[in-house]
Amino acid sequence: MIILDGNKVSNEIKDEIAEHVKVMISKGEKVPHLAAILVGSDGASMTYVNAKVKACQRIGFNSTLIELPEYISEKELLDKINDLNTNQDIDGFIVQLPLPKQIDEQKVLMSINPDKDVDGFHPSNVGKMTLDLPTFLPATPYGIMELLERYQVETSGKNVVVLGRSHIVGRPISILMSQKRKAGDATVTVVHSRSKNLSEITKKADIIVAAIGISEFLTGDMVKDDVVIVDVGITRVPDATKSNGYRLAGDVEFESVSKKASYITPVPGGVGPMTIAMLLKNTLLARERQRVF
Amino acid sequence: MIILDGNKVSNEIKDEIAEHVKVMISKGEKVPHLAAILVGSDGASMTYVNAKVKACQRIGFNSTLIELPEYISEKELLDKINDLNTNQDIDGFIVQLPLPKQIDEQKVLMSINPDKDVDGFHPSNVGKMTLDLPTFLPATPYGIMELLERYQVETSGKNVVVLGRSHIVGRPISILMSQKRKAGDATVTVVHSRSKNLSEITKKADIIVAAIGISEFLTGDMVKDDVVIVDVGITRVPDATKSNGYRLAGDVEFESVSKKASYITPVPGGVGPMTIAMLLKNTLLARERQRVF
Repeated sequence: MIILDGNKVSNEIKDEIAEHVKVMISKGEKVPHLAAILVGSDGASMTYVNAKVKACQRIGFNSTLIELPEYISEKELLDKINDLNTNQDIDGFIVQLPLPKQIDEQKVLMSINPDKDVDGFHPSNVGKMTLDLPTFLPATPYGIMELLERYQVETSGKNVVVLGRSHIVGRPISILMSQKRKAGDATVTVVHSRSKNLSEITKKADIIVAAIGISEFLTGDMVKDDVVIVDVGITRVPDATKSNGYRLAGDVEFESVSKKASYITPVPGGVGPMTIAMLLKNTLLARERQRVF
Repeated sequence: MIILDGNKVSNEIKDEIAEHVKVMISKGEKVPHLAAILVGSDGASMTYVNAKVKACQRIGFNSTLIELPEYISEKELLDKINDLNTNQDIDGFIVQLPLPKQIDEQKVLMSINPDKDVDGFHPSNVGKMTLDLPTFLPATPYGIMELLERYQVETSGKNVVVLGRSHIVGRPISILMSQKRKAGDATVTVVHSRSKNLSEITKKADIIVAAIGISEFLTGDMVKDDVVIVDVGITRVPDATKSNGYRLAGDVEFESVSKKASYITPVPGGVGPMTIAMLLKNTLLARERQRVF
């Protein structure tokens, strides 16, 4: 059983990008600049955004963190986004989700300039992805593709089962792995809450991407020998043996499933760090595009 | 075995739209106006476009057919599209595909005003479809959904196998049937040229959508009893017994498959007429939206 080590691979990618940035600097070019908008003070959101900013610093990107109060109006947030849309110094930016209730999340995502939408959530970028046109791929599925590719996991003609049909993971990864591309050309099945005979389906899978948001949902008896497991879930599970009272768990019961798997991502340290690396890669792409056009 | 009669259902839909148009006229409202651009004189394209124009006339829409010469430049075509984009009398328009070689098809599709893109091929509309936001659904998959819904074919939790991953049929129908919607909530698998053990997969399917473009590809031995069959293919097959020397065949071998099927679309008279009906429905929607916004 081989661990698909997201920490290791994401560090490789960050090193590659850092090298690229050095070359940019030596040529006197502008370095990529990522901005992040954080609304309110949700603990998990703050952790994610800070990790992104820190990653920028490490590889030599400029970064700007814009912290806005919890009670900001939708109009004020849209104005802020419009500033970033037109600010030529900002190559790409993200709005950390979730947003407070008074704000229409979809409206916000649609207001982002698609050319700066490094999260790849804008409908026109999602459409380009679906049509297999060049675009910013959403960071989590993009990270999964990159992880599989770097470990040379064969996907062509393989049966892939995606657990979950969310807009940010399940749906896009199911589309990407079914397309003609590296880590693609797979026979992909999407299962969800309405699916029946789940075990029967997962037992036929050569590769399973678990993105269903239920901790330790997938157990050893639901998979076949030598299955490849990509675990996207991350939830806090109460654990009295830990000093903070919880441990982090994925959508996969690691202990039982890892015994049968040929490859498996750990949680944490699997898909999570890959997501940040691919956000950086998208930001680099945004900068390169600005330079070209 | 029940025939999914696309002619009958599409006529019902056209009658419903015609009723709607009558009400519009009685209120003194502008009726929907569809324009179609046909480049060159490909026989099949002319047949399709003429059928669309004729359908408009039947239900009381205004229609405009713009015929352009085979050797037109990309620039001239884009100028023509721009005219239609800004012409307030035109609610929606289509560019009949395929286009001659000197023209970049993707560039053309992306130049269409998404608000008038009644074929639903523009990336921003494809993205909205993928994200389950209101938009113009591409006419063929939309027609399949409507046909299944009107025959009350149960799809929730069913195993659907889509043969083919094209941008205009396979990909969108696989997304739509997997979403929470009428004729949706299915467990969808997309198979394609790189898929292995095809029969094993198709034999597990409760519903098969065949859109692979190979005549009579799916045979009776590849399906289980009571399967529901939607046949999107339409090709000319040489047939010496016919006066014109050919017959029309789908991607499904009708004779052997229909013996096992619970529901099946014929070719012709299945999905084809539904496609035109849904194009009209999209045009009506485009008109309604113009009125609202």
